[in-house]
Amino acid sequence: MALRAALRNKCGFSGVVTQLFSCSSSSHGRVYAPPIVIAQRRNSSTSPKIKVDLDQSTGVAVMHMQNPPVNSLSLDFLTEFCINLEKLEMDKSCRGLIITSSVPKVFSAGLDIMEMYGTTPERCGEFWKAVQEMWLKLYSSNMVTIAAINGFSPAGGCLISLTCDYRIMADNPRYSIGLNETQLGIVAPFWFKDTMVNTVGHRTTEMSLELGLLYNPSEALKIGLVDHLVPEEQVLTTATQTMTKWLAIPDHARQITKSMMRKPTADKLTSNREADIQNFVSFITKDSIQKSLRVYLEMLRKRKG
Amino acid sequence: MALRAALRNKCGFSGVVTQLFSCSSSSHGRVYAPPIVIAQRRNSSTSPKIKVDLDQSTGVAVMHMQNPPVNSLSLDFLTEFCINLEKLEMDKSCRGLIITSSVPKVFSAGLDIMEMYGTTPERCGEFWKAVQEMWLKLYSSNMVTIAAINGFSPAGGCLISLTCDYRIMADNPRYSIGLNETQLGIVAPFWFKDTMVNTVGHRTTEMSLELGLLYNPSEALKIGLVDHLVPEEQVLTTATQTMTKWLAIPDHARQITKSMMRKPTADKLTSNREADIQNFVSFITKDSIQKSLRVYLEMLRKRKG
Amino acid sequence: MALRAALRNKCGFSGVVTQLFSCSSSSHGRVYAPPIVIAQRRNSSTSPKIKVDLDQSTGVAVMHMQNPPVNSLSLDFLTEFCINLEKLEMDKSCRGLIITSSVPKVFSAGLDIMEMYGTTPERCGEFWKAVQEMWLKLYSSNMVTIAAINGFSPAGGCLISLTCDYRIMADNPRYSIGLNETQLGIVAPFWFKDTMVNTVGHRTTEMSLELGLLYNPSEALKIGLVDHLVPEEQVLTTATQTMTKWLAIPDHARQITKSMMRKPTADKLTSNREADIQNFVSFITKDSIQKSLRVYLEMLRKRKG
Repeated sequence: MALRAALRNKCGFSGVVTQLFSCSSSSHGRVYAPPIVIAQRRNSSTSPKIKVDLDQSTGVAVMHMQNPPVNSLSLDFLTEFCINLEKLEMDKSCRGLIITSSVPKVFSAGLDIMEMYGTTPERCGEFWKAVQEMWLKLYSSNMVTIAAINGFSPAGGCLISLTCDYRIMADNPRYSIGLNETQLGIVAPFWFKDTMVNTVGHRTTEMSLELGLLYNPSEALKIGLVDHLVPEEQVLTTATQTMTKWLAIPDHARQITKSMMRKPTADKLTSNREADIQNFVSFITKDSIQKSLRVYLEMLRKRKG
Repeated sequence: MALRAALRNKCGFSGVVTQLFSCSSSSHGRVYAPPIVIAQRRNSSTSPKIKVDLDQSTGVAVMHMQNPPVNSLSLDFLTEFCINLEKLEMDKSCRGLIITSSVPKVFSAGLDIMEMYGTTPERCGEFWKAVQEMWLKLYSSNMVTIAAINGFSPAGGCLISLTCDYRIMADNPRYSIGLNETQLGIVAPFWFKDTMVNTVGHRTTEMSLELGLLYNPSEALKIGLVDHLVPEEQVLTTATQTMTKWLAIPDHARQITKSMMRKPTADKLTSNREADIQNFVSFITKDSIQKSLRVYLEMLRKRKG
Repeated sequence: MALRAALRNKCGFSGVVTQLFSCSSSSHGRVYAPPIVIAQRRNSSTSPKIKVDLDQSTGVAVMHMQNPPVNSLSLDFLTEFCINLEKLEMDKSCRGLIITSSVPKVFSAGLDIMEMYGTTPERCGEFWKAVQEMWLKLYSSNMVTIAAINGFSPAGGCLISLTCDYRIMADNPRYSIGLNETQLGIVAPFWFKDTMVNTVGHRTTEMSLELGLLYNPSEALKIGLVDHLVPEEQVLTTATQTMTKWLAIPDHARQITKSMMRKPTADKLTSNREADIQNFVSFITKDSIQKSLRVYLEMLRKRKG
């Protein structure tokens, strides 16, 4: 019934596309970057896109995504994200990681469309490799990972959430979460799909991906896409409390168990990274796909303009 | 709880067997074909068993199964079904397919028992190949497929439904749906099983197949065997409305996603078709199985007589 | 929501560890065997640990586990269990098996910790082989198997339940069931995991195993870990009634179907038994793991003392 409700409410193209990707400026010549967004992004271009607070007493780090306006996953962002993740993973004092957003109303709007539109195959491949890297690092993390989803979380934002061990979402009916790639005419790759199947099962994933469904928080809870809803102001404190319970389990036993559950899925990408990159680049650089992206960008620009 | 209810209500042998297979006449000498059924079927023998209405303005075809008395899946029927399906698949103007029944109270009663009883291994193998072909074509269809289940849908009728992208069933408690093969002493093959696992999960499938459970519409909705219940007279209009939502998604993105979800399952049969045929023929031609089928046919004949 | 409730209630270490393993005496020199438990077990050392009642008229056997105080799965117990199982499997007159406990309040507390603590690698490997054997025999049984869970059922007790075709549990909120190995710092092997995934799906298993969750009966019903709750005094009669429904299905069709559902999972262990044993032995004999077990045993001894 949640699926039906989602189908009823979310299939309209117009209301959804703005939640798939954000677009951001770039230092290597893009065409349709909306001026407003550029302005906002330049303001933060010299400051880090990720802020990490590690509490040495508890061993819990909170990673704040702060890449306004919508925490889009650009190559620069992903690189910074992975560097921070790697540091925490190597830090013996850090056992748990909470991922959240410093940008109001948005957890992450997903992959940066400007990394896919009007760019070179080389740059596009480099970008995709970074997306892979982020997923591999998160999905295989030895830390306990909790997503504190305090805003919109479509596409890549949903993917980040799905890699975590536990998902807490703000119970705000204006927020939504889902892998809505098909709405834009593009396709979630097999490892996005595998991650979702492992979370909500085959049938819900099939229908959700084919229709590019976005779920409001209560629908997402019902199908198991998130684990817990709380009022928006309690998302982070609830994440911290939940973390305490996860950290009560001996690390080595939890880590071996997590690896047993996830390694086969991670290995599927690890042993196919190059083919997956080629597949993505050849798909996204097709004229028809570039045209879809241009139409979308123009619509987005009109809205913001 | 739905499983328990189904177990409670449906395990009685007597009430169920008439829903597994229908029997129909044949042009190649069978023994126990019930006279009434033969009479009914001869009446329609010169008319097509499938009626297709393609609306060029919407790109949606409605395929009516009209093989009275119970839309049994005979070799002739399956051949006609596949030819029609192939035509639609090749027709660029057709993007969506709704499958429904013109026979009152029955969607399809499943495989024609007369194709399995007292026949030659050659004919039996030919029949099974046609069942495989139907499943492969439906499960891998590039069209959006919706089952408008307006009547009983046991065994092969359930399988047709399961291959579709979406299932809408008439909310009539006298109807039921399920893969009830074991009730008759025969066995659903691995690809029936895979299709059901992909829809309702491993555990529900295990229990459902071992007990040959049939579910009434509300039970079927609860376990995810169907997606939507509506009053009987609204089944087709609801299917048409739902189709509009599915067709709002760009075809190429939906098709690639559908293939990603289903190809591994389809490939398992594609690479094992011949062995699967041999397996079926050697099983079904066993004396003990033929005896089971005879007992069933005699019971069916008494009822109709 | 059931998961959240379980997380909330069950993650405290102290309340849970007594339910993971029982400890029993042994004939080959162990260190921390609690005196009370030893005394109790010696009383029953000459009597069989398994009592089997086979009703020839119905073809249904009831296997009572009677290894007080907590039906711990020692090597001796497992050996006796497997011998009885093998006998019933070979007995053509036996078609169904109900597994239950004669020990009040406990179905089975799981693997005997004294088989893993302070023992030799050889003995430890022999023990693990017996655990494998029990699982393989139960999970692949041709009989209809029903667990009549009339008490606590953690770890190995939960595993026995999971191998059955159907699970009926006493609706007593003081009982619980789950694979809680990580709570003690040890890890459920891949075939425990596979059995649970086949029952409750990937995500519920992932969270359940990582946190070592124990579920009360209503939570267990909600996630599908058990199929049916009844008042404690009705567990066995309900199991008997349910068995009648399962035995209404022709054996050969049910058995082929069961094998189709379970053989791939069983084969994964069958083809990796020796490596799985080596893996277990090298893990369990690590100093750090032995230390964990010692801490647990000391705590257990204080409680009982």
